Amino acid sequence: PVGDVDSIIEASERDWTEVSEEYRILQDIHQEYITKLEELSELQGRCEKELKHQRYRLGQIKSSLKKVKGSESNERRENLEKDIMRREAQLTKVQGSLPQPNGRYLSVILGSVNVSIINRDHKFRYKEEYEKFKLTVTVIALVIATIGLFTNYRVLDLAFTFLLVWYYCTLTIRESILIVNGSRIKGWWRTHHFLSTAIAGILLIWPDGEPYQLFRRLFMAFNVYIGIVQYLQYQYQRGCLYRLHSLGYRPTMDITIEGFHSWMWMGLSFLLPFLYIGYFFQLYLSYTLYVLSGHPEAPWQVKKHSGFFNSYTPLSAGALRYRYTLIRLY
Amino acid sequence: PVGDVDSIIEASERDWTEVSEEYRILQDIHQEYITKLEELSELQGRCEKELKHQRYRLGQIKSSLKKVKGSESNERRENLEKDIMRREAQLTKVQGSLPQPNGRYLSVILGSVNVSIINRDHKFRYKEEYEKFKLTVTVIALVIATIGLFTNYRVLDLAFTFLLVWYYCTLTIRESILIVNGSRIKGWWRTHHFLSTAIAGILLIWPDGEPYQLFRRLFMAFNVYIGIVQYLQYQYQRGCLYRLHSLGYRPTMDITIEGFHSWMWMGLSFLLPFLYIGYFFQLYLSYTLYVLSGHPEAPWQVKKHSGFFNSYTPLSAGALRYRYTLIRLY
Ligand SMILES: CC(C)(COP(=O)(O)OP(=O)(O)OC[C@H]1O[C@@H](n2cnc3c(N)ncnc32)[C@H](O)[C@@H]1OP(=O)(O)O)[C@@H](O)C(=O)NCCC(=O)NCCS
Ligand SMILES: CC(C)(COP(=O)(O)OP(=O)(O)OC[C@H]1O[C@@H](n2cnc3c(N)ncnc32)[C@H](O)[C@@H]1OP(=O)(O)O)[C@@H](O)C(=O)NCCC(=O)NCCS
Repeated sequence: PVGDVDSIIEASERDWTEVSEEYRILQDIHQEYITKLEELSELQGRCEKELKHQRYRLGQIKSSLKKVKGSESNERRENLEKDIMRREAQLTKVQGSLPQPNGRYLSVILGSVNVSIINRDHKFRYKEEYEKFKLTVTVIALVIATIGLFTNYRVLDLAFTFLLVWYYCTLTIRESILIVNGSRIKGWWRTHHFLSTAIAGILLIWPDGEPYQLFRRLFMAFNVYIGIVQYLQYQYQRGCLYRLHSLGYRPTMDITIEGFHSWMWMGLSFLLPFLYIGYFFQLYLSYTLYVLSGHPEAPWQVKKHSGFFNSYTPLSAGALRYRYTLIRLY
Repeated sequence: PVGDVDSIIEASERDWTEVSEEYRILQDIHQEYITKLEELSELQGRCEKELKHQRYRLGQIKSSLKKVKGSESNERRENLEKDIMRREAQLTKVQGSLPQPNGRYLSVILGSVNVSIINRDHKFRYKEEYEKFKLTVTVIALVIATIGLFTNYRVLDLAFTFLLVWYYCTLTIRESILIVNGSRIKGWWRTHHFLSTAIAGILLIWPDGEPYQLFRRLFMAFNVYIGIVQYLQYQYQRGCLYRLHSLGYRPTMDITIEGFHSWMWMGLSFLLPFLYIGYFFQLYLSYTLYVLSGHPEAPWQVKKHSGFFNSYTPLSAGALRYRYTLIRLY
């Protein structure tokens, strides 16, 4: 079948010629891509320079206006100040569409790699992924905690605590990326995750013994409860996210915003009792730890823990109360 | 001083007009930036599509050529095959200049945020930062380990082990980012860091007691030693990095490559004895753990550890030997 071989090779050669022509198209596109990339990074640099310059000059005008602030109200001055404020808001918006530098925490973990997401849809997708990540780990943790509630394996407990440390650590990283991308995640929410990482870390090195055994059952129950609440919260949060996202696309904001608020309000009223029960549970845990720290076998970890929890619960409860009032006032 | 106030306000207003004109320039640049960004992402999409298409068609030609592989050697077929190989190398290069998707590990930790570094100089800077990060943590660990060698505080030991867990974890993240950016970091090097994270984690939950006390002194000494070797290695690695970087910029490759190799060879001969002593040290540690696992008070962690170490040392020593031979053959 030499004829057969020849014809196959001939067909292949014809294909090759075609592919090579297509490759030339790819090369052209690629060349254009590289050129655009360079132009883009040049434009970005110019934008940043102009931004800095604008900020500098606005600052100068502001400080010279401040000098005459003491005198009686002056319409021209006030108008100028309003103009400046408006301009500053515009500059912030421009800044938001440029890649942002990483914060200190991200710089230590990732180094100076750029994690900006420019595209609006990708930002939304990233936020959604973050919620999904929380859900996945919550479900896994819920399963392990439920098993842990009915059994008593030291290895399972340790695996669970390792998961918690890893989870909270990863959350702080992802939240830092969200913040670089303009998310207004609250400070207390992040602090809460840093604290949780530390608490889980301390729990990890708490050696087995009577105090631990007295504590672990309650702790597992707490985790099962928190897992369920977090699942509910996920449903709520996702609802908020979707609604806000679609709001962003609609021209008739007022009515839908109204509808959104009533929906949010309903969801929150539903969630709040569960959250409060969670805080009481946490308070009870702190109390147990406090009692345990009087136990003759108690290692120093217990003492540290009870101190941590005691300052931690009022903090998060306070944050929730603050949040609650804010939404009320809305 | 009403006149004074007026003149200040007037000057401010004049400044404001100027700033506003400059703002219009910024707006234009920014508009251009946004447009280019959109064009760029469109071009990128087209490039990726064409790349995929090329790969698909090349694959088809290859599989039809494979059908005639059995027959006697054929010059046309062989030429075609060489052409295809060359083309595939070109495609890989094109691919390298496009943003790469994250690997599985990074996707779990960071989500689908884009961590590609396009600019060649930024890539180099990132690599350099990675080396500096290793150095900084090495120095901190060296200090803590030295203190730990002469004192015996449980809290210090735990802090040290926490540092190790965190360090190796962060290393794996940074190395994944390097790999996304085209670094050819070897699999065994990454595996080594994943294993180290696990080992440090197990060490963390090893409760205090006689076996731990028997082990800790030796372990601290090992860490001091490894810290010093790592410092030497950093100096060497940085030398390699700088030389390779500047080589990339020079037209007369051959001579400098020659010089580079002899330099690298010298550095490596200097380092190798230290590395080998490190491996023997590690072997001795494994042996100690093995002996300790017979101790009546030994918790399960010790047993796990000794198993880990025992498979770990030959693994890394083997990797080094392999590396060494490779460089010899060069
Ligand atoms: C009200 C709520 C939907 C967020 O509302 P919001 O109007 O988007 O914005 P906020 O000013 O409250 O928060 C700012 C940012 O933090 C995020 N955020 C706040 N709390 C969050 C949470 N629990 N989970 C995830 N993201 C959260 C918001 O999504 C927002 O991000 P964005 O800027 O990328 O859109 C939401 O945080 C909420 O009600 N949670 C209730 C549960 C709660 O408070 N739990 C605490 C239990 S310890
Ligand atoms: C030889 C050496 C300088 C790297 O040489 P190379 O020619 O750049 O490339 P290799 O093929 O060996 O390695 C591929 C990549 O892994 C990186 N790499 C390998 N070993 C590394 C290490 N110990 N530290 C940091 N990076 C390393 C290289 O920098 C290179 O990255 P790049 O593609 O971004 O340039 C370096 O790895 C070395 O000699 N190390 C000696 C120490 C050693 O082996 N230690 C093991 C102790 S357990």
